Amino acid sequence: MTNPRSAVAWTGGAATGHLQLIDQTLLPVEYREHSCTTVEIVWEAIKLLRVRGAPAIGVAAAYGVVVGCQTAQQMPREQFDERLRIVLDYLAGSRPTAVNLFWALDRMGRTAKACARLTSAEMLERLLVEAKDIEREDREMCSAIGRHGLPLVRGCSGILTHCNTGGLATAGDGTALAVIFAAALENPGLQVYADETRPLLQGARLTAWELMQRHVAVTLICDSMAGWVMKEDRVQAVIVGADRIAANGDSANKIGTYSLSMLARAHDIPFYVAAPSSTFDLTIQSGSQIPIEERASTEITHAFGRQTAPAGCHTYNPAFDVAPATHITALITERGVIQPVTMSNIRATLQSPGK
Amino acid sequence: MTNPRSAVAWTGGAATGHLQLIDQTLLPVEYREHSCTTVEIVWEAIKLLRVRGAPAIGVAAAYGVVVGCQTAQQMPREQFDERLRIVLDYLAGSRPTAVNLFWALDRMGRTAKACARLTSAEMLERLLVEAKDIEREDREMCSAIGRHGLPLVRGCSGILTHCNTGGLATAGDGTALAVIFAAALENPGLQVYADETRPLLQGARLTAWELMQRHVAVTLICDSMAGWVMKEDRVQAVIVGADRIAANGDSANKIGTYSLSMLARAHDIPFYVAAPSSTFDLTIQSGSQIPIEERASTEITHAFGRQTAPAGCHTYNPAFDVAPATHITALITERGVIQPVTMSNIRATLQSPGK
Repeated sequence: MTNPRSAVAWTGGAATGHLQLIDQTLLPVEYREHSCTTVEIVWEAIKLLRVRGAPAIGVAAAYGVVVGCQTAQQMPREQFDERLRIVLDYLAGSRPTAVNLFWALDRMGRTAKACARLTSAEMLERLLVEAKDIEREDREMCSAIGRHGLPLVRGCSGILTHCNTGGLATAGDGTALAVIFAAALENPGLQVYADETRPLLQGARLTAWELMQRHVAVTLICDSMAGWVMKEDRVQAVIVGADRIAANGDSANKIGTYSLSMLARAHDIPFYVAAPSSTFDLTIQSGSQIPIEERASTEITHAFGRQTAPAGCHTYNPAFDVAPATHITALITERGVIQPVTMSNIRATLQSPGK
Repeated sequence: MTNPRSAVAWTGGAATGHLQLIDQTLLPVEYREHSCTTVEIVWEAIKLLRVRGAPAIGVAAAYGVVVGCQTAQQMPREQFDERLRIVLDYLAGSRPTAVNLFWALDRMGRTAKACARLTSAEMLERLLVEAKDIEREDREMCSAIGRHGLPLVRGCSGILTHCNTGGLATAGDGTALAVIFAAALENPGLQVYADETRPLLQGARLTAWELMQRHVAVTLICDSMAGWVMKEDRVQAVIVGADRIAANGDSANKIGTYSLSMLARAHDIPFYVAAPSSTFDLTIQSGSQIPIEERASTEITHAFGRQTAPAGCHTYNPAFDVAPATHITALITERGVIQPVTMSNIRATLQSPGK
């Protein structure tokens, strides 16, 4: 297994280059890079979850736009713009619930509109610059989160995390994992406890893999063991990511996060949520307004290619839950640390220019 | 699928009858009864976990002694006793860590010693009576636990349970599940939330199956969802079993129990432990003295016939954890309910003749 590169990266120039991915559907059993030389291959990669994680999907889609417009680089600009429109529509259908996908496609479309005088070949170059900017900004966001989070976990001998919030989900080091990577760099003895994260096992399949690749000591546990790991004083901090954060700091994240936040509180262990400022939705006052997606029964009853529950068994499978702001010691963003977690502190940090 | 009989039952007379089991290794995909007509088949059934659960193993072993001695029923008593000795030793090797196995074998051996004047055929009959007594006592223990526990959960619309503590683990209705069966009989609208119970999924494979067989409404969840289910007010009580209870009431049980006890407490939901008086070990002062078995990594990394974690990934896999007495609202035993859970209340109930 070679040392992994970025989950999403561009190879070559604008005219003939392509998007290079790590095929996450094969992990953790096999590491294979996946060359996306046509927009159809990019579309399929997003659709089939070869690339996943909101920021990584955004970056992949932006590069997908460049790949898709290569066929029109010798055409008159009008035909290039028509091709661009088709590519944007096509990629938007790859994963219709991914907010970052639409955000990235929208940004690429606006870039083209703002540069109406460029030739097609120049426009293709310009689109690649924009896609690389999206990637770079994501990378910088990850580094800033790692930098801001580091002082909070300095001195910890063990940190617990949940789901996957690392380099596989972003163009950089991730969100919660960025803090952990920064801490491990400073303290090579750091022990990371990774929840396997049922039902889809992102912790077992992806987080454990990333940490092992980076030579960070990781111990994989079942989700039900997290409380006992806290009781045994094996961890001094819990860090998770977030999918959506309300104006009051209530944070929606992978199912199991709510329990972890409560268990951490009961053990007097700091509980941190690391997420970019784009995760905040200030139009939502509190977590009770965040809709919780319920997913298919088979994720619980047949998740490992094998039936492990009675046929027809009823399940409850919420994809997310909400850690209340009162359980969160601090929010770690690329603009700085929000502590204590209050509505006014959140607004102040999001409005600041960042550090 | 036929309606299941007891997990362990005797069919026929002493001379030619046999032990009949439900083969639990095939559940929940297939229901198949397994006829144990030789002691070798009984040994294999215990070894391969076709029968599991401490009380059920004890009953199976007792009937296994009868099956094993059938070959000596026409021989002189001295040869019968020699055969009995061989059978007891042989069955003791089937699962060397199962305390109930040794307890049942010891009781069968003592019965034979106490009836030295019987003929071999009479002794075989006597051994069957003793084995049936063990089964009957276990069945009565289950009913008494159900009876004593019922008033505690009266009025609940939802109850959460963990692992398997039902008819498959005992000769009767189980321990925690006996209370749930009693409650469901009284309130057919009762909704039971069953934790799948990683790593070995006893909740998904066995508890969900038992409840569906008995037409009790069951909703299967991942262990990480239990806290959220409490938060959403879906359950008004949590009931679990126990493997070992210390003199102060600290209760060792399947991993995940500790977290559940703390989450229940944080949500102000009563947390009950249902277990026979034989589960108490008064020589142990508190839970900190209970050794915790650590099990193989592969239960976490390869549990479903498929690799779901990176090769060589380090794991922590404690089989049990300990719910502290301070988190337990009441202990439910066949001798009555112990509430509040204090050392003196435990001693008083265990010394009482029962109700």
